[in-house]
Amino acid sequence: MKSQVSEIKKKIKRLETLVDTSMIFSSILDIDELLNIVLQKAEEVMDAEASSVFRIDEKTNELYFVTARGEKGKEAKEIRVPMGKGIVGWVAQHGKPLFVPDVKKDRRWFKGVDEKTKFVTRSILAVPLIAKGKIIGVAEVLNKKGNRKFNKDDLELFKALANQIAVAIENASLYTELDRLFLSSIRAIVEAVDAKDPYTRGHSSRVVEYSLLIAEAIDSDKDKLKDIEVSAILHDVGKIGIPDKILRKPGRLTFEEYAYMKRHPELGASIIEPIEKLRPLQKNILYHHERFDGAGYPSGLRGEEIPLGARIICIADSFDAMTTDRPYRRKKSIHAALLEVKRNSSTQFDPTLVKIFIRQFERYRMKK
Amino acid sequence: MKSQVSEIKKKIKRLETLVDTSMIFSSILDIDELLNIVLQKAEEVMDAEASSVFRIDEKTNELYFVTARGEKGKEAKEIRVPMGKGIVGWVAQHGKPLFVPDVKKDRRWFKGVDEKTKFVTRSILAVPLIAKGKIIGVAEVLNKKGNRKFNKDDLELFKALANQIAVAIENASLYTELDRLFLSSIRAIVEAVDAKDPYTRGHSSRVVEYSLLIAEAIDSDKDKLKDIEVSAILHDVGKIGIPDKILRKPGRLTFEEYAYMKRHPELGASIIEPIEKLRPLQKNILYHHERFDGAGYPSGLRGEEIPLGARIICIADSFDAMTTDRPYRRKKSIHAALLEVKRNSSTQFDPTLVKIFIRQFERYRMKK
Repeated sequence: MKSQVSEIKKKIKRLETLVDTSMIFSSILDIDELLNIVLQKAEEVMDAEASSVFRIDEKTNELYFVTARGEKGKEAKEIRVPMGKGIVGWVAQHGKPLFVPDVKKDRRWFKGVDEKTKFVTRSILAVPLIAKGKIIGVAEVLNKKGNRKFNKDDLELFKALANQIAVAIENASLYTELDRLFLSSIRAIVEAVDAKDPYTRGHSSRVVEYSLLIAEAIDSDKDKLKDIEVSAILHDVGKIGIPDKILRKPGRLTFEEYAYMKRHPELGASIIEPIEKLRPLQKNILYHHERFDGAGYPSGLRGEEIPLGARIICIADSFDAMTTDRPYRRKKSIHAALLEVKRNSSTQFDPTLVKIFIRQFERYRMKK
Repeated sequence: MKSQVSEIKKKIKRLETLVDTSMIFSSILDIDELLNIVLQKAEEVMDAEASSVFRIDEKTNELYFVTARGEKGKEAKEIRVPMGKGIVGWVAQHGKPLFVPDVKKDRRWFKGVDEKTKFVTRSILAVPLIAKGKIIGVAEVLNKKGNRKFNKDDLELFKALANQIAVAIENASLYTELDRLFLSSIRAIVEAVDAKDPYTRGHSSRVVEYSLLIAEAIDSDKDKLKDIEVSAILHDVGKIGIPDKILRKPGRLTFEEYAYMKRHPELGASIIEPIEKLRPLQKNILYHHERFDGAGYPSGLRGEEIPLGARIICIADSFDAMTTDRPYRRKKSIHAALLEVKRNSSTQFDPTLVKIFIRQFERYRMKK
């Protein structure tokens, strides 16, 4: 009777873990942090020494570690396991869970990981991660403490956890993929517009790069950096509305032509006007030709009245213009262009951002 | 002792429900179907007569039904509950669960929904849906059967279920939002390119509309329709690479100019070449000027050698060209254009698709 009660208590504890984890899944944004906490819970309830989550890399048909907890977790992270190889490879291939009470006695056991990590695996419980009917990876717990074996209750719990994990991973990667699609698509179209004029080929992409150099030194918040990236890609999108004969004129523009050309920030802002999610970025596009001393266009804003994103893009945009040929002048050397940026600090550019840009650009050049 | 055992059994049953639902969350793609099944489980375990999930509409500060199960579910779906009003409004506002054993005795109770649906609510258990720390909606079960009251065990289970539901809803809506951002962004840029020439203003958007008219009659698969939509938006993206003086020439093109112009499908396909996810759509762009009789360009494909998407876009594109003015000719009436499409069935166009287009277009015109 007593052992029955203790069995039931254990069962309840296991199941309660699932209640706890469902809370974790709804509260944690970062997928790596989430997996780490969920696996920690799994180790606790199942008395395991270590645990990992693998994903399948469909291109190479290998498994790679998404999370590796335990003594040698760090070492494990660089290892890749071929599909079908070892315990996790078997589980990934067959889509079925696997108990391995003693790895030494299992022919499927692949020593490679232990050899590299110096971790000693004794027993394994591995379950497939299945999302929307597709095998996307494997989760495993290693070495049940006290020389015991993983049991059916462990399996049941781990399968349920694996479902939660699979959904979380799948959702995160669907989102990441779509986000990449969004960015790369607008980038491809804008690059095609740039490429129409040999003098501006690659311009918007370089402005993204330079803008991020500055922005990353100010703030590491991913959303803010994404905003800068999208604003920078789109900063010249208004040039779509400028006739070729002005845009590509092989010489100085007349006063009227220049006045037309100066409308491109407003045209750009109006192109993204219908897109609610991009509206917060309109200001970065609209004001990227304002000057710190108030002598820019379209509104003559000055200093910090000019949105930060616009001040950043202004430096990046001008620097790229200086360092590329134009129909009516040759490009400046990088050294001369950096001097020119410095010379225009406080008049055209935000002096704080100029300092950051120059410092960051030097570092970036060294890395290249 | 007996009652203790039955209590424990109940507890285990509740917890096992969570294991089951975690399976459902990892296997069902469609969010409406998913919520329906999860609520059904919740009703079963908690002996409830009905259940609902509400979301908060941030713009209007109202709650609306996402799912409403039970006798009067259908009637409920059109109702909106102001924030703070009624039991669900209170839960949404305070972010706390609420037991209401007898709605008639609770001052917060709002009769409006029952009056509209003719459902008789007696008792309610309502929990907030919280995703990443934000209240996004409310889930409720109604009328515990056998005149009993919802209890603490029900609450514990329902809170855990609510977490799973909140994560699923949040993920689905994040994805939908980003997808909308992707589509609307490329659409805005392409529309700006179209708008540069008054003769093509709105062209790509109309081609999307006409293409979807045809595609929806063939296949209701969302992904396939999305592919057609994106292909149609981008079908002329290659025109970005064609000089204005050819693109906007107010008269017939010379042989050389026309040869240049005919490169736009290839240019379009090459613009999206770097984007892996869009590569399957390249063929729709590349071949949208092929003809059913093999006399089109760039490759002279014929019949069903031409990808379905390209055959669809070809009709939509031509029809829109016929029904809009060009520098060198006036537009045709819709009646004349439809006749022209019919006349070119089997030579220029896929005859099966022509029939579908004409039928669908007539319906669409009637609705307008």
